[in-house]
Amino acid sequence: MTDIVVLDHKIHGLSAADYADTLQAQLPEYEVQLAKTSAQKMKLLQEATIATGYTIDQALVEKSETLSLFVCTFAGTGHLPLDALKAHDVAVQNASGVHGPNIAEQVLGYILTFVRQLDKAWRQKQQAEWNHYQAGELKGSTATVIGLGPIGRTIVDRLNAFGVSTIGVRYTPSKGGPADEIIGFDEADLDDALVQTDHLVLACPLTEITEGLIDEEALLLLPTDATVTNIARGEVIDTDALVDALQTNKLRGAALDVTDPEPLPSESPLWELQNCQITPHNAGHTPNYWDRCADIVSKAITTHT
Amino acid sequence: MTDIVVLDHKIHGLSAADYADTLQAQLPEYEVQLAKTSAQKMKLLQEATIATGYTIDQALVEKSETLSLFVCTFAGTGHLPLDALKAHDVAVQNASGVHGPNIAEQVLGYILTFVRQLDKAWRQKQQAEWNHYQAGELKGSTATVIGLGPIGRTIVDRLNAFGVSTIGVRYTPSKGGPADEIIGFDEADLDDALVQTDHLVLACPLTEITEGLIDEEALLLLPTDATVTNIARGEVIDTDALVDALQTNKLRGAALDVTDPEPLPSESPLWELQNCQITPHNAGHTPNYWDRCADIVSKAITTHT
Repeated sequence: MTDIVVLDHKIHGLSAADYADTLQAQLPEYEVQLAKTSAQKMKLLQEATIATGYTIDQALVEKSETLSLFVCTFAGTGHLPLDALKAHDVAVQNASGVHGPNIAEQVLGYILTFVRQLDKAWRQKQQAEWNHYQAGELKGSTATVIGLGPIGRTIVDRLNAFGVSTIGVRYTPSKGGPADEIIGFDEADLDDALVQTDHLVLACPLTEITEGLIDEEALLLLPTDATVTNIARGEVIDTDALVDALQTNKLRGAALDVTDPEPLPSESPLWELQNCQITPHNAGHTPNYWDRCADIVSKAITTHT
Repeated sequence: MTDIVVLDHKIHGLSAADYADTLQAQLPEYEVQLAKTSAQKMKLLQEATIATGYTIDQALVEKSETLSLFVCTFAGTGHLPLDALKAHDVAVQNASGVHGPNIAEQVLGYILTFVRQLDKAWRQKQQAEWNHYQAGELKGSTATVIGLGPIGRTIVDRLNAFGVSTIGVRYTPSKGGPADEIIGFDEADLDDALVQTDHLVLACPLTEITEGLIDEEALLLLPTDATVTNIARGEVIDTDALVDALQTNKLRGAALDVTDPEPLPSESPLWELQNCQITPHNAGHTPNYWDRCADIVSKAITTHT
């Protein structure tokens, strides 16, 4: 008798079989099964009350008479058949918050690399060159984090620990957050923030408001020694404007885990720019991913039952 | 009438003229002068009560009848004519604590580079290669920091903010510190710490006890995915043993701001090792160096008078 069915999928290169094992270990009083094929999914969903995975087919939702909770292993839920889930009284829980620590670590890694010029050290090392240079300091600088969801808030927490003044940008500033100052997407407020920003971090969803938000004008408002980090979506930045700003030293540097388009084409000038760090959309990867998803399932079950 | 004389010197590539300017701005009620030549130093020390710089000649100490305070712009004071200073009732203050924030930032930069594999990203970028890979997580790991002076304590503070379990090693454990656990240099205690250490950071002075402390045996006690960071002195590590451990994947990586000898010779195998970060003894550099030295002089004057 299956209680929880794990719908097979791959995420960040991780195997759902490991997820099923982790869930089973955390929830020994439940029977956890991994469903790989469509037939297996259909069969197991005739008895399971809980399903978890990246997504679930509308047909499976409609045919299951036992399902009452779906836990999505992804932060967003826009890709789910939400209407069908609602119509069949299936509660939906997402994995928001799963990525906070690892993404914040990657962001601080990028910024400290720029501030302490570890990129220069890397180039010198390739030449076996021992040559002293001067570096900057993160303490006392100002960082603006656009997007104060679980990821943005964790980034702000880590920045605060380095003695950085933080400005958070969110749709509803009254919701608050850990930043020293919190503003909305009002253009004048945002401009005031950008001119005093040493480190800009994009951690927002891609929406009509955020698409192309960091354009030529925004990049010009930033100080010339500012850094830009994008762990949101490539389309939040105007790529041509960013390339120009990096090529003409209008910025200290950019760190991109996401690009527009993606994968970044091999002919993109960003690859050649020394003041650009590029990671292949892997900031979300953590070896603790399934553990944290299993925690969410455990909590959801407790709340749900 | 000169109150404070800045003895010209260069440190971390910074100019003492800037130091004199910073001091003058912070202490407008005092007359600050920069002495470049020996004759200038001798002349100004006939009227100044305070001198500051990297060191002071014994002859100058003996000939000044006004000097009552020397503020050394260096963390250590072993290079000063301490007997002469004491004999002439000249109080000595050092710049301990000046380097904490910037060195801690550099250490976290190294560690996050290893944990999030930003070094791999750097190599992939040189090939214009967009290729997803899995990275680790700092949160939940264990770090051991050897040396809990102002620098070691600041490193521990920053690590704590990432959810790292910290072990501090100091001569007198009863003095305490911000680490979760504090031990002394007892070999059994140190061995127990090393076997559970994901990130080892050396932030201790070079003494009879610390010279060669991280030898082949110590490196073998560390887990195979551990990192070693040295911002202390090169001689704290047995370099041959480190090279062997890195070449045979007994360690995830080493980050060295200091080496034995220094500068690191161009024929050293460390230059060729991909799992080694090397910076040219510049972790101590900060653009805020003179500001923080001036703060120390200001406080020393207040305490002294």
